[in-house]
Amino acid sequence: MQRVGHRLERVFNPRTVAVIGSKAANNHMWLRNVLTFQGKVYSVQIDEGESPGIAALGVENYSSLLDIPGPVDYVIVAVPRAVTPKVVKDCIAKGVGGVTLFTSGFAETGTEEGMRLQEEVRQLAQEWGLNLIGPNCMGIFNPSIGLRHNQEQYCGPGGCVGFISQSGTHAAFFSLMGARHGVKVSKSVSYGNAVVLDSPDYVEYLAQDEETRIIAMYIEGAKEGRRLFECLKAVTPRKPVVIWKGGQTEAGARAAASHTASLAQPYRLWQAMVRQAGAIPVESLEETIDVVRALLYIKHGTGRRVGLMAHTGGPSVVITDDFARADLEVPALTQESYDKLASFFNVIGGSYRNPLDMGSTLGMDANLDGLLRVLGQLLDIMGEDANVDVVTMELAVPFMARRWQREPETMARILDTMAYYRDRSPKPFMAVVRPLHMEEMAQQAEAGLVEREIAVFPSFQRAAVALRKMVDYYSFHRQD
Amino acid sequence: MQRVGHRLERVFNPRTVAVIGSKAANNHMWLRNVLTFQGKVYSVQIDEGESPGIAALGVENYSSLLDIPGPVDYVIVAVPRAVTPKVVKDCIAKGVGGVTLFTSGFAETGTEEGMRLQEEVRQLAQEWGLNLIGPNCMGIFNPSIGLRHNQEQYCGPGGCVGFISQSGTHAAFFSLMGARHGVKVSKSVSYGNAVVLDSPDYVEYLAQDEETRIIAMYIEGAKEGRRLFECLKAVTPRKPVVIWKGGQTEAGARAAASHTASLAQPYRLWQAMVRQAGAIPVESLEETIDVVRALLYIKHGTGRRVGLMAHTGGPSVVITDDFARADLEVPALTQESYDKLASFFNVIGGSYRNPLDMGSTLGMDANLDGLLRVLGQLLDIMGEDANVDVVTMELAVPFMARRWQREPETMARILDTMAYYRDRSPKPFMAVVRPLHMEEMAQQAEAGLVEREIAVFPSFQRAAVALRKMVDYYSFHRQD
Repeated sequence: MQRVGHRLERVFNPRTVAVIGSKAANNHMWLRNVLTFQGKVYSVQIDEGESPGIAALGVENYSSLLDIPGPVDYVIVAVPRAVTPKVVKDCIAKGVGGVTLFTSGFAETGTEEGMRLQEEVRQLAQEWGLNLIGPNCMGIFNPSIGLRHNQEQYCGPGGCVGFISQSGTHAAFFSLMGARHGVKVSKSVSYGNAVVLDSPDYVEYLAQDEETRIIAMYIEGAKEGRRLFECLKAVTPRKPVVIWKGGQTEAGARAAASHTASLAQPYRLWQAMVRQAGAIPVESLEETIDVVRALLYIKHGTGRRVGLMAHTGGPSVVITDDFARADLEVPALTQESYDKLASFFNVIGGSYRNPLDMGSTLGMDANLDGLLRVLGQLLDIMGEDANVDVVTMELAVPFMARRWQREPETMARILDTMAYYRDRSPKPFMAVVRPLHMEEMAQQAEAGLVEREIAVFPSFQRAAVALRKMVDYYSFHRQD
Repeated sequence: MQRVGHRLERVFNPRTVAVIGSKAANNHMWLRNVLTFQGKVYSVQIDEGESPGIAALGVENYSSLLDIPGPVDYVIVAVPRAVTPKVVKDCIAKGVGGVTLFTSGFAETGTEEGMRLQEEVRQLAQEWGLNLIGPNCMGIFNPSIGLRHNQEQYCGPGGCVGFISQSGTHAAFFSLMGARHGVKVSKSVSYGNAVVLDSPDYVEYLAQDEETRIIAMYIEGAKEGRRLFECLKAVTPRKPVVIWKGGQTEAGARAAASHTASLAQPYRLWQAMVRQAGAIPVESLEETIDVVRALLYIKHGTGRRVGLMAHTGGPSVVITDDFARADLEVPALTQESYDKLASFFNVIGGSYRNPLDMGSTLGMDANLDGLLRVLGQLLDIMGEDANVDVVTMELAVPFMARRWQREPETMARILDTMAYYRDRSPKPFMAVVRPLHMEEMAQQAEAGLVEREIAVFPSFQRAAVALRKMVDYYSFHRQD
């Protein structure tokens, strides 16, 4: 049963899972989380009153981990904190691949008992080389083998994004929200207080994991900052690493201490470390997903000159600000492009300097073939313009809503046109769909773009920031 | 027919409206926009081919404005630009209350003809004291009399927010998006190139308008910066003025020149002017609506110490960062509060320092009455804590989704509880509903909060910025 490779290979890809301490009181949450698991699931619960509930889920129960026949690769522990040292000893005796301590109430409570128990567990695990995840965490999500830490999570073919999180909630939300926006997880881990395994261990594992092309992480603190830095420096030239730091402010750091007992670290040093390591800093869950989308679905590039396609003038002004504030350029187009545009662009009520205010030129009430032909011309001009590195186009739902209701094929044909020109041009291409007052239609349009693997953002501001971070990453690692 | 009061009173509250240049080619857009108008609508169109289409809409057509019997209060002009001087002369001869030049193609095109025509129109209007709105704009929206500039806009009882916009698209989106989020317009104007009437004229009008309690504006440039400053300084102590500036960057200013021929002004000077005038600067349409919501629905205050109520630990850390970065405080609670919390709060898996990680204490699977009782206790403790000025609570849809589906009354009862404690406490109260992966449920929850006039924001970051700007406004104007 021994597998070669990284020491975390076995625990991230288990064949047998045991849940210790499943209880009716929380509706057997942990057993339910792993009912989708494709390997074998066991339960360990000494309270006989729980046996019928466990049997009803079709799971074999044992009164000790040591009684389970054959090897156990991954153990999930949900027992009272006072019992954890005993359980950790059993895990060591059983020779398991790794264990997640869901149990909380350790150093993060600031209590003497919590700190004492945490230290006891840490010493045991470290002395015996146990792969201990947590405590105070949700452990591993590996969709391809149906191993979940939340019952809403998907199973089956996973994605290519590894997510490492000190918060279980952020880990769950990243997977659930990401899936709606075209970002699926290869493997994810929520690792809480990190008393034994810490972020560099997980980064190292995902760095060598073939399914993982991009690594993203939510981190509140690293016990060995230097080790994390060296690890990131080694990994980022091969795989982008997106880092979201919680506890950036003094008040936030105090909250982090109550959450995962993480120590405060000056955020400026963090920022410098992240930059020097060639990783990508982000500021929120939404931005993490945005930047991952940019890395996944926009052709990679280092050019900062953006050609913008909008529908009307007022938005053109503020979206130009959005890109300029993100330290990107919105240049004049070439004379050649202006000559081409002058032959058909409606300049009364629309400018074509850059952004193109294309609303009145597209003629949203004209026939659909005509509209698509004009849209194609505009996309070709932007795609061929020597002053433009990246093309960004708004799909303005309010301007197409009436036509869309009248001719339901409108949406699919516009999306297909965008996908065609995205493929036709070697330039990075991104779309913006603002929810505005038409959230439902915007969600449908976004879903259509996600399906066509076009990077789509809910505002120009977010598109600009995501693009900038993608461009910064490839500029930093450019091989000159 | 002459009315007393501000010179713009008549044009913002017309009894008769004339549309000049309605055409089948754009589906009689302007006549359709004003079909809901409660007064009399006339058409002026010399092309006899257009007559049947106009008659079909039930509108009387005349071949000249001067032929319309009786006074005309408001004229909307959609004729080719070359014809505008002639039409403006007719408006002067007719003695109308004001005119919107929808027509574009003037100085914003940078062409000699456009500039010459604009200058001609300007001179005529100024010489004869004509209230000329635009050109290159959508004019007035006054929902209470059914006067619209967009067919999706609402009619009937308006709100109390006046919106002044150099962009017609922003004006339309502000009204449409605002209405979904509890922000309704009293009167709004899109004023484009501002060759005669400029932002200070509209601010002055709305300042004395009794229906308008808050003024918000999107502005690309002001020809008389000093006049705007003096005007704002006079108005802001009585009514908050929220200012969103387009063309903040060099590139954005170039786009503004193509849009409304606005001249570039250094944004730093703008910021200083806005601050010294006691107005509230914002950076986007979304932020404009956020800040207006804060002004409308949060009890006014100048306290910066926020009590946060979240569901789990990871989010608690980053939301603390969000408020601290907005220069607000997330203080420790009083010992009295901690003593009360210690008697029932579940600290294993949840901290109550501030934020309260209340998920496991609420017990989302416990019975609803119990949950509401505990929520009430928490809201009371926050409401009474001497260290807390403002209470911010997340309504975390994913944590209540299962219960909500099982017991549909869950949502209404939680919202009612929030509204009850909002009323019970003298402190400002605000809610956060993050869309996450449950956009539809989040929209329903948000609608329920809007209905109960609770200020609600889609992220803690946006809540924090809106609160900060509300607090800054009242701090600036505090009468010490």
